[in-house]
Amino acid sequence: MDKDSIAEILNQVESGSLSAENAMLELKLTPFEDLGYAKVDHHRAIRQGVSEVIYGSGKTPEQICGIVASMRSAGQKTILITRLDKHSAETIQKSFLLDYRPDAKIGIIGDIPKPTGSGKILIATGGTSDINVAEEAALTAEVLGNEVFRLYDVGVSGVHRLLAFSKELMSASVIIAVAGMEGALASVIGGVADCPVIAVPTSVGYGASFGGLAALLSMLNSCASGVSVVNIDNGFGAGYLASMINHIRNTK
Amino acid sequence: MDKDSIAEILNQVESGSLSAENAMLELKLTPFEDLGYAKVDHHRAIRQGVSEVIYGSGKTPEQICGIVASMRSAGQKTILITRLDKHSAETIQKSFLLDYRPDAKIGIIGDIPKPTGSGKILIATGGTSDINVAEEAALTAEVLGNEVFRLYDVGVSGVHRLLAFSKELMSASVIIAVAGMEGALASVIGGVADCPVIAVPTSVGYGASFGGLAALLSMLNSCASGVSVVNIDNGFGAGYLASMINHIRNTK
Amino acid sequence: MDKDSIAEILNQVESGSLSAENAMLELKLTPFEDLGYAKVDHHRAIRQGVSEVIYGSGKTPEQICGIVASMRSAGQKTILITRLDKHSAETIQKSFLLDYRPDAKIGIIGDIPKPTGSGKILIATGGTSDINVAEEAALTAEVLGNEVFRLYDVGVSGVHRLLAFSKELMSASVIIAVAGMEGALASVIGGVADCPVIAVPTSVGYGASFGGLAALLSMLNSCASGVSVVNIDNGFGAGYLASMINHIRNTK
Amino acid sequence: MDKDSIAEILNQVESGSLSAENAMLELKLTPFEDLGYAKVDHHRAIRQGVSEVIYGSGKTPEQICGIVASMRSAGQKTILITRLDKHSAETIQKSFLLDYRPDAKIGIIGDIPKPTGSGKILIATGGTSDINVAEEAALTAEVLGNEVFRLYDVGVSGVHRLLAFSKELMSASVIIAVAGMEGALASVIGGVADCPVIAVPTSVGYGASFGGLAALLSMLNSCASGVSVVNIDNGFGAGYLASMINHIRNTK
Amino acid sequence: MDKDSIAEILNQVESGSLSAENAMLELKLTPFEDLGYAKVDHHRAIRQGVSEVIYGSGKTPEQICGIVASMRSAGQKTILITRLDKHSAETIQKSFLLDYRPDAKIGIIGDIPKPTGSGKILIATGGTSDINVAEEAALTAEVLGNEVFRLYDVGVSGVHRLLAFSKELMSASVIIAVAGMEGALASVIGGVADCPVIAVPTSVGYGASFGGLAALLSMLNSCASGVSVVNIDNGFGAGYLASMINHIRNTK
Amino acid sequence: MDKDSIAEILNQVESGSLSAENAMLELKLTPFEDLGYAKVDHHRAIRQGVSEVIYGSGKTPEQICGIVASMRSAGQKTILITRLDKHSAETIQKSFLLDYRPDAKIGIIGDIPKPTGSGKILIATGGTSDINVAEEAALTAEVLGNEVFRLYDVGVSGVHRLLAFSKELMSASVIIAVAGMEGALASVIGGVADCPVIAVPTSVGYGASFGGLAALLSMLNSCASGVSVVNIDNGFGAGYLASMINHIRNTK
Amino acid sequence: MDKDSIAEILNQVESGSLSAENAMLELKLTPFEDLGYAKVDHHRAIRQGVSEVIYGSGKTPEQICGIVASMRSAGQKTILITRLDKHSAETIQKSFLLDYRPDAKIGIIGDIPKPTGSGKILIATGGTSDINVAEEAALTAEVLGNEVFRLYDVGVSGVHRLLAFSKELMSASVIIAVAGMEGALASVIGGVADCPVIAVPTSVGYGASFGGLAALLSMLNSCASGVSVVNIDNGFGAGYLASMINHIRNTK
Amino acid sequence: MDKDSIAEILNQVESGSLSAENAMLELKLTPFEDLGYAKVDHHRAIRQGVSEVIYGSGKTPEQICGIVASMRSAGQKTILITRLDKHSAETIQKSFLLDYRPDAKIGIIGDIPKPTGSGKILIATGGTSDINVAEEAALTAEVLGNEVFRLYDVGVSGVHRLLAFSKELMSASVIIAVAGMEGALASVIGGVADCPVIAVPTSVGYGASFGGLAALLSMLNSCASGVSVVNIDNGFGAGYLASMINHIRNTK
Repeated sequence: MDKDSIAEILNQVESGSLSAENAMLELKLTPFEDLGYAKVDHHRAIRQGVSEVIYGSGKTPEQICGIVASMRSAGQKTILITRLDKHSAETIQKSFLLDYRPDAKIGIIGDIPKPTGSGKILIATGGTSDINVAEEAALTAEVLGNEVFRLYDVGVSGVHRLLAFSKELMSASVIIAVAGMEGALASVIGGVADCPVIAVPTSVGYGASFGGLAALLSMLNSCASGVSVVNIDNGFGAGYLASMINHIRNTK
Repeated sequence: MDKDSIAEILNQVESGSLSAENAMLELKLTPFEDLGYAKVDHHRAIRQGVSEVIYGSGKTPEQICGIVASMRSAGQKTILITRLDKHSAETIQKSFLLDYRPDAKIGIIGDIPKPTGSGKILIATGGTSDINVAEEAALTAEVLGNEVFRLYDVGVSGVHRLLAFSKELMSASVIIAVAGMEGALASVIGGVADCPVIAVPTSVGYGASFGGLAALLSMLNSCASGVSVVNIDNGFGAGYLASMINHIRNTK
Repeated sequence: MDKDSIAEILNQVESGSLSAENAMLELKLTPFEDLGYAKVDHHRAIRQGVSEVIYGSGKTPEQICGIVASMRSAGQKTILITRLDKHSAETIQKSFLLDYRPDAKIGIIGDIPKPTGSGKILIATGGTSDINVAEEAALTAEVLGNEVFRLYDVGVSGVHRLLAFSKELMSASVIIAVAGMEGALASVIGGVADCPVIAVPTSVGYGASFGGLAALLSMLNSCASGVSVVNIDNGFGAGYLASMINHIRNTK
Repeated sequence: MDKDSIAEILNQVESGSLSAENAMLELKLTPFEDLGYAKVDHHRAIRQGVSEVIYGSGKTPEQICGIVASMRSAGQKTILITRLDKHSAETIQKSFLLDYRPDAKIGIIGDIPKPTGSGKILIATGGTSDINVAEEAALTAEVLGNEVFRLYDVGVSGVHRLLAFSKELMSASVIIAVAGMEGALASVIGGVADCPVIAVPTSVGYGASFGGLAALLSMLNSCASGVSVVNIDNGFGAGYLASMINHIRNTK
Repeated sequence: MDKDSIAEILNQVESGSLSAENAMLELKLTPFEDLGYAKVDHHRAIRQGVSEVIYGSGKTPEQICGIVASMRSAGQKTILITRLDKHSAETIQKSFLLDYRPDAKIGIIGDIPKPTGSGKILIATGGTSDINVAEEAALTAEVLGNEVFRLYDVGVSGVHRLLAFSKELMSASVIIAVAGMEGALASVIGGVADCPVIAVPTSVGYGASFGGLAALLSMLNSCASGVSVVNIDNGFGAGYLASMINHIRNTK
Repeated sequence: MDKDSIAEILNQVESGSLSAENAMLELKLTPFEDLGYAKVDHHRAIRQGVSEVIYGSGKTPEQICGIVASMRSAGQKTILITRLDKHSAETIQKSFLLDYRPDAKIGIIGDIPKPTGSGKILIATGGTSDINVAEEAALTAEVLGNEVFRLYDVGVSGVHRLLAFSKELMSASVIIAVAGMEGALASVIGGVADCPVIAVPTSVGYGASFGGLAALLSMLNSCASGVSVVNIDNGFGAGYLASMINHIRNTK
Repeated sequence: MDKDSIAEILNQVESGSLSAENAMLELKLTPFEDLGYAKVDHHRAIRQGVSEVIYGSGKTPEQICGIVASMRSAGQKTILITRLDKHSAETIQKSFLLDYRPDAKIGIIGDIPKPTGSGKILIATGGTSDINVAEEAALTAEVLGNEVFRLYDVGVSGVHRLLAFSKELMSASVIIAVAGMEGALASVIGGVADCPVIAVPTSVGYGASFGGLAALLSMLNSCASGVSVVNIDNGFGAGYLASMINHIRNTK
Repeated sequence: MDKDSIAEILNQVESGSLSAENAMLELKLTPFEDLGYAKVDHHRAIRQGVSEVIYGSGKTPEQICGIVASMRSAGQKTILITRLDKHSAETIQKSFLLDYRPDAKIGIIGDIPKPTGSGKILIATGGTSDINVAEEAALTAEVLGNEVFRLYDVGVSGVHRLLAFSKELMSASVIIAVAGMEGALASVIGGVADCPVIAVPTSVGYGASFGGLAALLSMLNSCASGVSVVNIDNGFGAGYLASMINHIRNTK
């Protein structure tokens, strides 16, 4: 709960427009709506603008519908649902107009907003098998109001394929590097580009890739400056962070 | 090597002002100076501006002096040397005016530039033992032209200490969360703030902290959106990335 | 085998009411009944009172029925069966009146006793996906005679949702913190509350959560005092221990 | 910060005895004192009673002295300093009357209080090498007002040595089981006793003990009910938690 | 190839009863028959006596039948097939008289021989879920000519159940301790008995048991002397080794 | 992108036969064809000769057909498809003449070339279960123009079976040692032979083999000189590297 | 505490020669002597015969002297002290006649007994660096009454060096295989010999040997039957177990 | 022991020039000289030509001198001693003319031979800190008769520094890629070059590099074909293997 809200409530109490008891209630109830199985955070919606996110995994279609309804009635225009399986999507589509993208396992309710932000977000993958994770990142970024440039299958074992796009790499605002076995992609991009690089290890691979661990460690040890890492297969996290960086506001 | 440089060289060849053979030479020689034990990258210096960085660990004082001299003669104003032990610092101080900070193991040659960028970088630590890593991040960010707000010893086991500074957390441009045993700091900050959070796990701790592994995994699994992670104890990487984000230019 | 029992048997031998040979037999046979595939411990039942527990995983429905029958004939009023799949439950229901809770995978034979103990047990989860494990803990505690307060989906990435319930947190006798990706929950609760906190890591999550390992390590490294940890997904163990703490008798 | 405090402050604002601005200040300043390198938490002191704890590792003797002085002036009677090396202890002894126990690496300022609580805390070790960690737990419990029974070198490879003390095991209020290579101690004790058992894995051992990991995993997988685990070598944590359990107050 | 065989062949060459060329052939061909997909070792059969073993996993029923036929024609009386799934067993039963035990996943062709050896082999399990692995060990030992005493469900969380059988433990020739979560069984038995103890970790358990790793590490770190460990779930290996120890011949 | 190509393009620009703008285009487009989902590398095809490889895993049959068509129209004679499941193979066979080998999961389009190279490649396996991986290596080597000698089921627990083939081991040009549980095969072969040994750990095994990790570590720690390791189950990588070594050209 | 002892005590109580109270005392006190810091087990001494063992690591020289004195007065003839550093040995030598072997870090008080047992114990090492661990095993076995044959530096990368001693391998009663990087030694010996093989991984090596983990895993996965494993560097455990196997008595 | 030697001995026995008993002796004694602490392999020396290697780590200077003397008297011209510390080198220099290179920790006795082989061996490092390992590889290769091209500090975060040497990369016979944090070097080189690439992970780095594990995993997962891996820091192994590949003889 942020300090400004406390201050405002305190001011109302001081001015007499709010009793102490009601202040307590408000402090307790405002920030979220309690659905029993979930506590929907409307504050975040207010702070972040038009788009809100539901993490679909581990929730029943009924629970998701409940959360969507709660968000809708709180004025949310666009809602992004991640890790949504096909079966759940079809159930939700009975109640809501849902655009479902099976590769990215993403469902979108409402319109994708016009891009804003400082520049483009470039999303690169090492191989074709990393595309699902990359699409999760790409759709997330687009729903949050960003222009996205996709650059797929440019793994470092053929580094010339990557370097052929150095103009795009040099002019991006943020880059998301998605790679499995080949965690090296983040290092090479980090050395070429001079914008923040968000590395997403994927669980693609076999043997000593250990479900993405090899790519994760490789990315964490990148010698290139400006590289940070999110969880294995966390395309959503990368897209969300990229959007945040692309929308840094001047606070000076 | 970026495509624009290739294009420029090709134009010179086309116009006759550069022979093909010399073009080859230039393509090969420009980007770095070969000191034998190191290949100093002057291109990066040109791209990044006044400040350049030497990773001191694993280099002899003599090698560092050689690299400093090469950078200096290439016009570098400020040079940051990280992971610099006291003994090496004293040797370098015989040849160069070096400001040495033993806690952060950082040496600075030249002036710290005036802060530029979108806003402030807030650096928080979980405990007092994480301060060395935090200072590496803080000094790196300052040398690269950022204003830094230090918020130390605000670990989540006393979450009210952290929340007392929610105004600072809400108004930062970027936040660096440095924590050892208590990797939770990044999650809590990520939930409160709405700017990018760079998490730095530290090797502080004992037992099942496994040299920072516990904090690293905890941070990678953060439920808060907008959090990414750099390597254990990598204060420099966090400071550098934070500066990059704080200096995102509008490319539209 | 506890010393008091040995002493009692020895006294009977000394007084002549028990032969040495029979004493040996008794020492050997009393504490458990040997069903071949299992050795049912009636001593524990006597010590712990009305409720006894069967760990259902890896046992056939027939084996479970055999153990239930053995317990029943030994005077057991309430029997809790954990890790019980739906199919086994249905088989058991043909022989016994079994209340089956599919989410918690728990079956209950007999009545849930009235709550006793020092106070309430509060059970908190980081997300909705942790609820199954939390329910295993909650039902276990209720069967063992405790009042339980459920506080679900209060993960630390929205720490204000948790703090809104600080009155409940402050007044609990014991707290069980159930969390997957977000092991931080135990630390934050441990810092707010001043009662014992039992942390239960869950295998909920993906990527670098490594089946609950990340949450486990995070919880073990908690900076908050008063926090201890049970095995991943071990809701039963947490509920049992919480009940034990809530029933500490004054032995002075 | 607990809700009751907020309520009290709000009441004062409502009644006019406190301005909104001052309320904000108080909300921000009360809970801790900011020494720059550390934020000393006086609230905890008030809640927990006469004894307060400083984690000595990673702090300079000067920093520790500063924190002690701050606590003393806040009215703290007894102060426990853990992980305190001999050199730091000697420096502190120049300013404060410090009782230093080198084996446990613990320093105590002020008197050890009379034991209170429900019963005795029994502390058992597997071998002689685990005694240092056990003493950290024992002294912590004593400083926090508990009677401690030490039962050392009763590892399960000679299980009769342990069972000879079954009377003590049966009558304890809480048991702390400290063991390295032989993590089995917690399971065996957990099966004999019917009170909470806090397991402390130690880093004692070699080879495949991996610095306590083997004991940690063994303890987490204990089949005995009522067993929970703290971090490797975390004698303090075990002693603190044991004291908490031994002081559970009846809140009904 | 053992030295005695070489010596014998050399003697035949020296005496003229074998040409050098034929000697080479014999050295190459005798020890095994090459079936293409497998090289059946008849030397081992000769050394070990009446019983031979086929590791069924990863072999087709047809391959197994081929190996059985090759062994039979080489005079093998009893053949043990381990890791044999039900489907393969049924296929083999069309060609050979096979006694299939589904729990142990073992098939036996030929008669189980009369027990020989120094004494009895005792096989203990921690829980009922470990019985499958224990039966693999038990049947292996019986097929290799040993008397087996089964002692199941005597885990250390109820150590009195185990100690009630101390006479059997004290009088065994070799003991096999099979346990999953509760690797402690080997330590406790090793402390009570004074014969070799072969510890078999099982993959039974969940969470931090990591597929048997916890039990494995616990057993390797046993403080009890005379304990050694075989691979996770390797009931066959334990039974085979126990038989070897039980048949040590006096070579003095 | 290799330097010679750059030089050639520059020469054309200098001589006027190529404009700077077109040079840029060629630098960007030549090395690969962009199919959207994949960037096919025709440069590699030119360098490596008649045979080219498609990694089938994670690609749809349609994508594979697209890549095959692109390669075919670029003049590729023989195409090797690895990690190809039966279903995909059948789909591809509708469009192309594909020779599918289900054990090795390999599909071949075009003729297997006549063997060239310095000598034979010997491929040994520890057991029958390692044959699938070995066949992937063998077919890869054959498609790339090598003579292969298969030596299967010669694990070191019967080292005489291996040594019976020492003539073949001594006369090979390169040896590929494929082994699961029994990573020792590479060490023993490395000590007998004096040619390069490529070790391929397989995921065959159970328990503490940890999906091939045990074999991998064992092979990496081989005491024998001349041994190197590829990824777990990477038969293709071993066959490709063996062919490379077998075709080393004299560049002096 | 074994059942026979309980029976005897019960008989005495029944016959009146022992009161119930004194029986309790005896049950509690007999098996060990409590020195405060250690509980010396005289029962074990009686069972095992003339030689007893002290694990020196983590004990002060004074503690060791105390234990030695206690054992001596209980009639112990030979005492083996393992993991004894040079400094402690010198201190002990002031009080007792101690034969110290610095390589094996072993001290011996009293005479080494004449060999008894079924046959010889063969101890093999992979390299010269494994000799220290092997000597710990060898001296332990000798002190416990066994004839030992040392076969050092016979690693499998030169398997002919090992096979040259196949007569010794074939005729041993038990074999101890000590190896670091090269854990393969146990597999190869296990395939050649037909007696029990005790594998001792050593921490010798670097890189991916991970302090003996690679050798440990390799040995656990041995394909050879009759192989079991003790902890990394546990020469004592191997020697003790080998002696036990070599002294199996016929109990039929 | 190779089959040809056996054949030759058998022929001598057949012809009567060797008795069977003496044949046995020769089979046992020829391949190595037994120094007690080491078994020096003269067969290898004969096979490999003029240069032989001693692994210095874990051997006393006296043991090394003994082995050198044994090799010298067997006609060895050049001897390479790896992992040789400064102190041992100085001791050996008292007895032999030893050229000691402290960076590579290598000692050389005798002359470095003239280069032979198919072409050049290129050795690349990611950073300056990897040079020590690279020099171990380089000197090993030179002592074994190879021309070496050193290309240091060409890590992939500045991939243009590496590509500037693509002519050298394209024309090498074998490439050794030495890299710590930045295991990516092997992938990038493997994609550019078309000769075998031997990857050497180094333990250089910190945090999540885990002593070289990150680089090791990254290299094992390389997408580039033709890459294999040796142990962490194993410069010698890489140099030896590279020499073997560079000296492949045509056996057709």
